[in-house]
Amino acid sequence: MPDLDDELVAANAAFYAAFEQRDLDAMSELWLHEDHVVCTHPGWASLHGWPAVSASWFALFQGDHPMQFILTKVSSTIRGDLGWVTVDENLIAGPQAQTVAAVNLFERRDGAWKLVLHVGSGIAPG
Amino acid sequence: MPDLDDELVAANAAFYAAFEQRDLDAMSELWLHEDHVVCTHPGWASLHGWPAVSASWFALFQGDHPMQFILTKVSSTIRGDLGWVTVDENLIAGPQAQTVAAVNLFERRDGAWKLVLHVGSGIAPG
Repeated sequence: MPDLDDELVAANAAFYAAFEQRDLDAMSELWLHEDHVVCTHPGWASLHGWPAVSASWFALFQGDHPMQFILTKVSSTIRGDLGWVTVDENLIAGPQAQTVAAVNLFERRDGAWKLVLHVGSGIAPG
Repeated sequence: MPDLDDELVAANAAFYAAFEQRDLDAMSELWLHEDHVVCTHPGWASLHGWPAVSASWFALFQGDHPMQFILTKVSSTIRGDLGWVTVDENLIAGPQAQTVAAVNLFERRDGAWKLVLHVGSGIAPG
């Protein structure tokens, strides 16, 4: 029997791999394509529903600088078919570095953890 | 039979009422006092576990300016004993106004929705 928590953390890692690789197909595969999904990028208004969320990934992946994520403080919780991961995204994008406190919420469908909510909140430089 | 979604939205409203009223007892009653709770105030690093989260409310409630929240774009989703609310917090604190995109995640325990995660992400002025 696979460890659900390992699978959740792996799905979370796959999200950041798709982000770094600017892989729209992989990003699309990771999300539920439903109306209740929500994505809030740092500084952005919340985006609701898969069409708006999908468009934001397309826009972000056109940026000048690829992003590299170093994930720290990864913490996961599972309740039934829901699981969430909190993580610090230590983000390097070209000349810029920033740390973003993020939450990723997943629903388990047909055995696979699918993203339904991503929120990133920029941490002010200390 | 009470409507679970109404109860969830009411718990969410109670959270902002406690915030406005700087009511530590009410805020404490709303949260699960467990290790897995997470709270991320805008610009702050994530706080993990009830002691750290509780201390942050104590600190915030010492601020000079009471905060007033006008909630817009309230959207809720329930899956079993978990529910989450996304909301725009239109926040007035003395001379300052800001909009924060927030997510509040609740677990249902003994029939009551209890906060386990609050994340606020400041929306950059357009």
